[in-house]
Amino acid sequence: MYIVPERAIADLMTRKAAFDAVEQVFAAMAAGDAYNFPVVREAIGHEDALYGFKGGFDRAGLTLGLKAGGYWPNNLEKRGLINHQSTVFLFDPDTGKVRAMVGGNLLTALRTAAASSVSIKHLAREDAKVIGMIGAGHQAKFQLRAALEQREFDKVIGWNLHPDMLPNLEEVATEAGLPFEAVELDGLKEADVIISITSSFDAILKADQVSPGTHIACMGTDTKGKQEVDPELLVRADVFTDEVAQSISIGEAQHAVAQGLIAEADVAQLGAVINGAHPGRTSAEQITLFDGTGVGLQDLAVASSVVELAIKQGIAIEVDF
Amino acid sequence: MYIVPERAIADLMTRKAAFDAVEQVFAAMAAGDAYNFPVVREAIGHEDALYGFKGGFDRAGLTLGLKAGGYWPNNLEKRGLINHQSTVFLFDPDTGKVRAMVGGNLLTALRTAAASSVSIKHLAREDAKVIGMIGAGHQAKFQLRAALEQREFDKVIGWNLHPDMLPNLEEVATEAGLPFEAVELDGLKEADVIISITSSFDAILKADQVSPGTHIACMGTDTKGKQEVDPELLVRADVFTDEVAQSISIGEAQHAVAQGLIAEADVAQLGAVINGAHPGRTSAEQITLFDGTGVGLQDLAVASSVVELAIKQGIAIEVDF
Repeated sequence: MYIVPERAIADLMTRKAAFDAVEQVFAAMAAGDAYNFPVVREAIGHEDALYGFKGGFDRAGLTLGLKAGGYWPNNLEKRGLINHQSTVFLFDPDTGKVRAMVGGNLLTALRTAAASSVSIKHLAREDAKVIGMIGAGHQAKFQLRAALEQREFDKVIGWNLHPDMLPNLEEVATEAGLPFEAVELDGLKEADVIISITSSFDAILKADQVSPGTHIACMGTDTKGKQEVDPELLVRADVFTDEVAQSISIGEAQHAVAQGLIAEADVAQLGAVINGAHPGRTSAEQITLFDGTGVGLQDLAVASSVVELAIKQGIAIEVDF
Repeated sequence: MYIVPERAIADLMTRKAAFDAVEQVFAAMAAGDAYNFPVVREAIGHEDALYGFKGGFDRAGLTLGLKAGGYWPNNLEKRGLINHQSTVFLFDPDTGKVRAMVGGNLLTALRTAAASSVSIKHLAREDAKVIGMIGAGHQAKFQLRAALEQREFDKVIGWNLHPDMLPNLEEVATEAGLPFEAVELDGLKEADVIISITSSFDAILKADQVSPGTHIACMGTDTKGKQEVDPELLVRADVFTDEVAQSISIGEAQHAVAQGLIAEADVAQLGAVINGAHPGRTSAEQITLFDGTGVGLQDLAVASSVVELAIKQGIAIEVDF
């Protein structure tokens, strides 16, 4: 079996490879070729940690396995380690033998960024020029970098609860040679594409702060109770997601569905748009919203991709297991 | 992190170490210090395989992780590999980082054998002389070897659906210097201890084929629909198990509970006997029955034990992950 340690991922994995892996697995999910297993998530009663497993199987890509790990909130302060810790294990679907073990921390950031980027490719207007960010933390930089590759943007605007973090966004805009402007939430009306990436438990963006024709990717809501946008926005928008079951239970759509504003049937799979089974955006006025909840298959897809790269480049550690 | 490959386990792990690990973790479960996570088990629709994860956390032993793998029914014929394939992954509960990867095939056999052996230590009569086996497959040899260490047995008797497999039992009896006798099911009345280890879906042993004072370990039933003994036997016996929730849903007790013959409250944890919180056997006439369903914590306990042994003996492969 092969081992690709965390420290090797940054030099191996490209945004392009992450994008392709996530786009393919979203398509396989919508085609019924790939599915996620029930998620195990446990508050273990030690170090306030949340620990669990997200598994799945992609029959098309022959990728089987799980991401294991979770959130250790005291890691950074106590030990100088990052709080999110995860490892991906891939298995040979023909034999059940373990095939690879891969560091999952950077991969998780890249696959989350790839998801909103895939949604922009398939749902944003071709002539989108202004991208707006809600959230300016570490992960926001990954989302913005991946998003900027999808359209000919000419400006980045951004809002964050703590404005002192906005230089994170400015840094990425500058890398791409684009101007950055800090805005109030009303200023996001100027955006053609909006990405929200926060840990908010209350709606930040109101429905009337979004202009017709905008594509919004809500990437922060992955747990019951979290929320980034006004549920009314999901009524105005055509709603897409990675996995419908997660979207309506732990994703951004949970609130609009719970309030009876939209139904499960109103949430479509982004993969169906990729496959051509769903028309996606059909007008320049339409608002599209992608509810990115994060599924195990994304992790497996990028991990499988990085293992192939590591083997090709002779960097994978081979262990006779 | 450390790697202990499957091929290293046989020389490292002892029955004594497996016994101690399983006894300790059963006690920790009953004390509320250790718990199993929900089990994920999926028919993946490829190679007729069943694949899944059994995880848990033992706060007392600080063991966190999972066993991943399953059953690939075509392995042996198609590829010369064993059909049950599993791997154990241990995590550092202080940080969430992966700590070890351990081959899980032999460990699974050893921990299953240890479980019935622990039940014999704590529930069988001290003066037990005859041990009876129902089932004579590969795993039956493991169960019998571990059982023989618990009492001064002077005879092994056995029954199997296919009598041509009985030499498996005779081989182990001979190793231990004991006579072996093939019997009909009625002949098991002579046994002081009985272990059933089959893949039966129908009751094999009737309630009146068991003598007063016997201890029975039912080790084969780990799925809805499987069954080894007459539900009436669970009425006659005092019933113990590794985990009550599994016992009444997928273990041997599922049938007696479904038929209203016994209640959940009639099934006690073997760990409570180990801890002294439950008296266990209180008379020489009483029949005791251990319903061994198999829990993830057993796998984690023996894996953790073998990692310690491998490190001590300089056999663990260390990888900078």
